[in-house]
Amino acid sequence: MIRFDCDYLEGAHPAILQKLIETNMDQTIGYEVDPYCEAAAEKIRAACACPGAAVHFLVGGTQTNTTVIYSLLRPWEGVLSADTGHINCHESGAIEGTGHKVIALPGQDGKLTAEMVENAFEAWKADASWEHIVKPGMVYISHPTETGTLYTLAELTALSETCRRLRLPLYLDGARLGYGLAAEGTDITLPDVARLCDIFYIGGTKVGALFGEALVIPDPALIPDIRSLIKQRGGLLAKGRLLGIQFDVLFTDGLYFKLGKHAMDLARTLREGFAAKGYSFMCDSPTNQQFPILSYEQIERLSKDFSFDDYGPADAHHRYVRFCTSWATTEENVRKLLEAI
Amino acid sequence: MIRFDCDYLEGAHPAILQKLIETNMDQTIGYEVDPYCEAAAEKIRAACACPGAAVHFLVGGTQTNTTVIYSLLRPWEGVLSADTGHINCHESGAIEGTGHKVIALPGQDGKLTAEMVENAFEAWKADASWEHIVKPGMVYISHPTETGTLYTLAELTALSETCRRLRLPLYLDGARLGYGLAAEGTDITLPDVARLCDIFYIGGTKVGALFGEALVIPDPALIPDIRSLIKQRGGLLAKGRLLGIQFDVLFTDGLYFKLGKHAMDLARTLREGFAAKGYSFMCDSPTNQQFPILSYEQIERLSKDFSFDDYGPADAHHRYVRFCTSWATTEENVRKLLEAI
Amino acid sequence: MIRFDCDYLEGAHPAILQKLIETNMDQTIGYEVDPYCEAAAEKIRAACACPGAAVHFLVGGTQTNTTVIYSLLRPWEGVLSADTGHINCHESGAIEGTGHKVIALPGQDGKLTAEMVENAFEAWKADASWEHIVKPGMVYISHPTETGTLYTLAELTALSETCRRLRLPLYLDGARLGYGLAAEGTDITLPDVARLCDIFYIGGTKVGALFGEALVIPDPALIPDIRSLIKQRGGLLAKGRLLGIQFDVLFTDGLYFKLGKHAMDLARTLREGFAAKGYSFMCDSPTNQQFPILSYEQIERLSKDFSFDDYGPADAHHRYVRFCTSWATTEENVRKLLEAI
Amino acid sequence: MIRFDCDYLEGAHPAILQKLIETNMDQTIGYEVDPYCEAAAEKIRAACACPGAAVHFLVGGTQTNTTVIYSLLRPWEGVLSADTGHINCHESGAIEGTGHKVIALPGQDGKLTAEMVENAFEAWKADASWEHIVKPGMVYISHPTETGTLYTLAELTALSETCRRLRLPLYLDGARLGYGLAAEGTDITLPDVARLCDIFYIGGTKVGALFGEALVIPDPALIPDIRSLIKQRGGLLAKGRLLGIQFDVLFTDGLYFKLGKHAMDLARTLREGFAAKGYSFMCDSPTNQQFPILSYEQIERLSKDFSFDDYGPADAHHRYVRFCTSWATTEENVRKLLEAI
Repeated sequence: MIRFDCDYLEGAHPAILQKLIETNMDQTIGYEVDPYCEAAAEKIRAACACPGAAVHFLVGGTQTNTTVIYSLLRPWEGVLSADTGHINCHESGAIEGTGHKVIALPGQDGKLTAEMVENAFEAWKADASWEHIVKPGMVYISHPTETGTLYTLAELTALSETCRRLRLPLYLDGARLGYGLAAEGTDITLPDVARLCDIFYIGGTKVGALFGEALVIPDPALIPDIRSLIKQRGGLLAKGRLLGIQFDVLFTDGLYFKLGKHAMDLARTLREGFAAKGYSFMCDSPTNQQFPILSYEQIERLSKDFSFDDYGPADAHHRYVRFCTSWATTEENVRKLLEAI
Repeated sequence: MIRFDCDYLEGAHPAILQKLIETNMDQTIGYEVDPYCEAAAEKIRAACACPGAAVHFLVGGTQTNTTVIYSLLRPWEGVLSADTGHINCHESGAIEGTGHKVIALPGQDGKLTAEMVENAFEAWKADASWEHIVKPGMVYISHPTETGTLYTLAELTALSETCRRLRLPLYLDGARLGYGLAAEGTDITLPDVARLCDIFYIGGTKVGALFGEALVIPDPALIPDIRSLIKQRGGLLAKGRLLGIQFDVLFTDGLYFKLGKHAMDLARTLREGFAAKGYSFMCDSPTNQQFPILSYEQIERLSKDFSFDDYGPADAHHRYVRFCTSWATTEENVRKLLEAI
Repeated sequence: MIRFDCDYLEGAHPAILQKLIETNMDQTIGYEVDPYCEAAAEKIRAACACPGAAVHFLVGGTQTNTTVIYSLLRPWEGVLSADTGHINCHESGAIEGTGHKVIALPGQDGKLTAEMVENAFEAWKADASWEHIVKPGMVYISHPTETGTLYTLAELTALSETCRRLRLPLYLDGARLGYGLAAEGTDITLPDVARLCDIFYIGGTKVGALFGEALVIPDPALIPDIRSLIKQRGGLLAKGRLLGIQFDVLFTDGLYFKLGKHAMDLARTLREGFAAKGYSFMCDSPTNQQFPILSYEQIERLSKDFSFDDYGPADAHHRYVRFCTSWATTEENVRKLLEAI
Repeated sequence: MIRFDCDYLEGAHPAILQKLIETNMDQTIGYEVDPYCEAAAEKIRAACACPGAAVHFLVGGTQTNTTVIYSLLRPWEGVLSADTGHINCHESGAIEGTGHKVIALPGQDGKLTAEMVENAFEAWKADASWEHIVKPGMVYISHPTETGTLYTLAELTALSETCRRLRLPLYLDGARLGYGLAAEGTDITLPDVARLCDIFYIGGTKVGALFGEALVIPDPALIPDIRSLIKQRGGLLAKGRLLGIQFDVLFTDGLYFKLGKHAMDLARTLREGFAAKGYSFMCDSPTNQQFPILSYEQIERLSKDFSFDDYGPADAHHRYVRFCTSWATTEENVRKLLEAI
């Protein structure tokens, strides 16, 4: 069975394992104040062109989303998100678990626009019963989105300006940021993200690490004492260096970006291979998730040797499915898949 | 600098790293339903002599405590804990963060007795204003406790009987369970824990793993759908196999127990070494945490070559300090320490 | 200005004020265990034909909804509601404030059907990633709904059967129950509500009381110790008798039902008056809220002498508006309104 | 039976009932934006000598405490309180229900001192593991305290200065503020409270109203949009004018202060009466709660005709009990009590 279900099928990039082995018996104090974490943070600041940023390491995406949103909202506020947003659909109610509503707006290709945010905020403000309605208190986006789409620099700039004018912190979930930054044709760089967002995370779990996400706060005053909340939410790893080591390796010699490019190259091969054989797609994804439309018969046949994710019915005879490439995908496996379709 | 501050100073036991390397490019589906997790769960069930138990893997202790307590209490209930309990002192308000009060009772050497629990429950029940007071809804203990002490089988049995009579689930935090089970003179075994507690976890982070705790629920009906809450609280690791692999190694050929014994042997050496030189102790700990009393002068001198934890003033001239041994402590380092004191 | 904006414009029915005056200097112990509360509870049990029910009094609707939903859901569960449900739209995120998602389903005239509930539950159950998705844990309906519509006995029976089969408690928000029970053509009685719902409240605030809602739990074992949660959520009034006195008066000699009928009679007059003059309606409401469609010009003219609620644009030239009748509405005011349109 | 158990035994001052009757059929819009609420707020601002204050009305004390504390704390913060504080003992875990720890300090006669607050804050700040410990985020006091004691102006000034220096909002629970302000010998006035506290409430429930508390925020910017949270927590009464009317009456012609003085005069009569007959007291309370020490025999005998509250054992033969006077206590009843002892 060759798997394309998701981008967290394998362990970690070998350089990470190598560094874990080399440092295994070093003694460091816990909770992410060790030299490895500091080195990794420094490299991330440099990559973001944001020397004053606070960088914290957490274990996973749901935890990071929850920690950020819980820390930024006042009790009567909610978070604006596209209805397809991960926090709205696939986090078991984690945001609501912190006491806050996810205010789901019908997204456009999984994205929020500046206009949507402005309209939602102004509608709340204009409502005579505003105090009965959850106030939009911040904005959550992901880049790439759940369906693999990307913001353009113009879109993200407009969103950022609107958020700043309305005093709504803009938070970017970068679970797959490495793939977004390496996508062909994107005009957004990591420094752009750091400049336009108030807070964001650089995903490790899906881009070469065993686990771990790097939370970046360009202006650390945004959330004082955030280490307390990271601890409270279970994100302050006792052996914090595990996170530091991984991100140190990922941000040494541009490995993070190389892994992104590797996955993007194979995603393009995969997409072009499907298109060449006449398949159409659920949406036009420029990143590592591809959503071709397969007939039930094709699905049945392919499933004998390949695994992929189901995304629901397209019509009476076809379904949407998802194939993911990642840092670990091999050219050989993509070739085998394309031969099989 | 030779460190004795805590028991999470190093990485993982080499056998764990070895297995991570061997399996690194295997493809498995995520979220802890892979064959490694299943194998590890099966071995843990066997070690607990509890074939029907549910076993789940979480990332860390605070997260596990929060998940368990949040899932067991009704909104108007609190959790009984010794005032020195980890959930009361060192989890940044994580339990309160789930909406529940930690009802702190003055512990006895860090322990709760059956009588304390009964008195607290009966006092609530007898109060004419019971509805204004937080109802004790479950009991939290740790074994070993925060000060390294251990329950006897008789104590744990009495506590268990009282809890079951009062319908208060008994939860045991086993962050250092491996050290408790290996302590000289203890009469409690892992099957005893599984028989007497309603839910407990076997700590990996402090006993040889990179990270990870194994939550055991002898009767799985206690918390239906707990995977949802584990996900919500950030504990359902995408690459879940990382947890399965680690616990599989720890529970193969009794490695977990061997690591416990190693730390216990060196703790005894350390304790006897201090005692032989006339030091007295904050308390009588049979496990891997030792709390000798040092003068300010001794602390200053020792601190040049050794690190250890401060536990506050003993008198005007002395302080309590903590030295920990662990699976990774070397005989040589203990010897050097004893020579230095 | 003659007001029709809502059904809580005036104080209380004079009989209630009279009883408050008569009992004013009586001394009773607090927190709703006084003889007035007990008498009121007994009368409500009788009216519900449910002699074993627990009856508790709370101050307002949002508080009651929050208390009920918080007490019934486990941490990973959410509450199914029509998207127009009060808990989803107009409670400032109170349900999310208890840690739970409102799972909003597109309602049908503001109502949920048995089929919708079954589909939502089965979709969760069938999802391969069920643990990432909020589990439907109970069902919230209101009767009348937010748009004044009513369940039929057949609809409520089907919903009840489905909920019981799926083990989802069915909760009915009866903020305007008095008006629903008195509506022309309804085949649902208060004993039907008590028989088919697992928990519900009888609204006082909008049906003749100064404030207050009576929560009825046909099987008190559903929520043990609920008085604790009522206290925690601010619903256990110190001078609890204020609630007992009001509901005692309302359930003496059928006053509650008479007040309902009064409002229904005037609502019919109002509806027929609008219809006779050719107005159409946003929806067909058989209860005390009527939603005619007015032109901007008509709205401007009417607003000089009458107040009513805006419900948004109907088309480029018209808007939906709401007129409410209540226990306190006078025939004369309805007549004046009909003359003015 | 003549009752002295508490200060919420009767209904409301007759002037309040009178005004409720007079205004009963007036039509006002809901949710506390009616003219009665505005008039009451204006009178309270004047009484506080604080023309810029925001004044909001809530239903009860627990609700007010919860709303204030939930709105002021960040998720990783707790509230400092004397261990005898109402929020720590008698609110069913309401504060923890909002996700925050009550950090209970051993009080001094039920009071916190500036030094205690400073020590607690500095201890947190100095702790090497500060992020594992709940940060003190605000200070809760009550005046009078739970045991009837009062802050002096010097004490409250010192506390205020310390809180402002440490940037900890100071919140005063004034459930019985009317009795505190009228106490013989107190040097604290309502303008002092408004000047020294960042937020406080003026209790109505125990001082002449049917129910209701007036929350005063001298600088409204402290909590923007607080009406949303009041709504979420069930405090925004539909018929909001009920609160406005009551506080309007209480703050007309100094009625609130007269009611306080009435209760204080009778409390002194009662205290002096007990003292004259040789009784001693649990503590020296200058306010409307008096705590004499009675033998079991005396308690049994008195209980035939009088009710009062038990406060636990004083020694093997005696118990502490509480007698409360209030706005409604009659001279005659106090005389009868003193004759009986």
